[in-house]
Amino acid sequence: MRIVRLTLAYDGTSFRGWARQRDQRTVQGALEEALSRILGSLPRLSVAGRTDAGVHARGQVVSFPAEPEIDVERLGRALNAMLAPEVVVGEARFAPDGFDARFSASAREYRYRIDVGEVADPFTARFVWHRPGGLSLPRMRAAARGLEGEHDFASFGRPHRPGGPTERRLDRLAVARAGNRFEITARGNAFLQQMVRSLVGTLVAVGEGRMEPGSMASVLAARDRRSAGPVAPAHGLTLERVIYGRRT
Amino acid sequence: MRIVRLTLAYDGTSFRGWARQRDQRTVQGALEEALSRILGSLPRLSVAGRTDAGVHARGQVVSFPAEPEIDVERLGRALNAMLAPEVVVGEARFAPDGFDARFSASAREYRYRIDVGEVADPFTARFVWHRPGGLSLPRMRAAARGLEGEHDFASFGRPHRPGGPTERRLDRLAVARAGNRFEITARGNAFLQQMVRSLVGTLVAVGEGRMEPGSMASVLAARDRRSAGPVAPAHGLTLERVIYGRRT
Repeated sequence: MRIVRLTLAYDGTSFRGWARQRDQRTVQGALEEALSRILGSLPRLSVAGRTDAGVHARGQVVSFPAEPEIDVERLGRALNAMLAPEVVVGEARFAPDGFDARFSASAREYRYRIDVGEVADPFTARFVWHRPGGLSLPRMRAAARGLEGEHDFASFGRPHRPGGPTERRLDRLAVARAGNRFEITARGNAFLQQMVRSLVGTLVAVGEGRMEPGSMASVLAARDRRSAGPVAPAHGLTLERVIYGRRT
Repeated sequence: MRIVRLTLAYDGTSFRGWARQRDQRTVQGALEEALSRILGSLPRLSVAGRTDAGVHARGQVVSFPAEPEIDVERLGRALNAMLAPEVVVGEARFAPDGFDARFSASAREYRYRIDVGEVADPFTARFVWHRPGGLSLPRMRAAARGLEGEHDFASFGRPHRPGGPTERRLDRLAVARAGNRFEITARGNAFLQQMVRSLVGTLVAVGEGRMEPGSMASVLAARDRRSAGPVAPAHGLTLERVIYGRRT
């Protein structure tokens, strides 16, 4: 068997997230249905980022074992012909032996988009959180610096597996502004469930003056979801890319 | 009475175009319903561009008469609170006496977006025509030059009113390319129904070598829809802005 690696982009608006669920439209469910029709059997998928309901992806990575004879570029085209237009396979290729989309990944990069203008833009509304009002960029940046690094992030999310560890390495939490658009980039080795949206909600609370930039250490120390800011809505969040080591 | 002027943006995907139709979801229908609820009566609307089903607008302009006492900024906010998120009022203000969104307009500017990359982008799919393959920019530009100016455009569209005139002034037909994205800008005093999409379909046929850049004069002279290229799909088209003279 060889390992097939797919890069996926999807508009998550009408999906109940990545992970297959009975009687729900999910990205994994849609991809598995198409793959099983094309291959005649259902391979076991590994995914880099198990995105929540409504979250989008530009550079999601999926891997699975397949017969070495398959034409992998043709597989990509067949998937695109079969999948709904909201899900697109950007690249389909063989990966080195031992590659696993989830376990080989060294980091994930997410981006959260906020529009603070008074009036929403209907052309970006599916991918941007419209939240009119003022946000202080220096305050948000100061808070973000206090969250970068290796921490127990229990205040910011739940582990995907109940009782699992909540320590994560947040390599980068950057806030950029261009006009009315704020973009928050979060890169780390892995993320707890709702963690990026909880980080964003906390930075917004700081930017609006409802929390203090200097309080991030105590928010982390509390290990309590109630100490962080509210969870920002899913539709502003996109998994931008997955970073792998040299061997892939 | 004073004249209220609204600037509208809308994602036309789920609308049967601008013009009210019985039992169909249209932008005019949605706006009129909201206006009549707020004002208690239905004003007669004038619109700059009667966009077809599935066509979008960034800078559509609408005008109507209203009591001089109304708070026009508050009206804009009330409309945004009531309208579906796909329709947004960007500006609401009083216009000079005699202003009419349709008859005062000196020009309309439309933009058509094409993505020629092999794989579609799910984040722009609602607003961009995905048409993989090669397009010759020099050929398209040469054809566009042959279409600019005052012509009888009967080969490219029908008048909104059957039997009406088909002469129009096309001030600008420009083709730009950035990577896999082509953008065609059409500015003119007014457009026939489907005219921009028919111009685009013709330029694409030229860009693909199915029509000749030098044949535009004979296509115009034919005054026959069959002499032009096919009509490009609606979802790639956006009414970008409406141009008014000094007095507005």
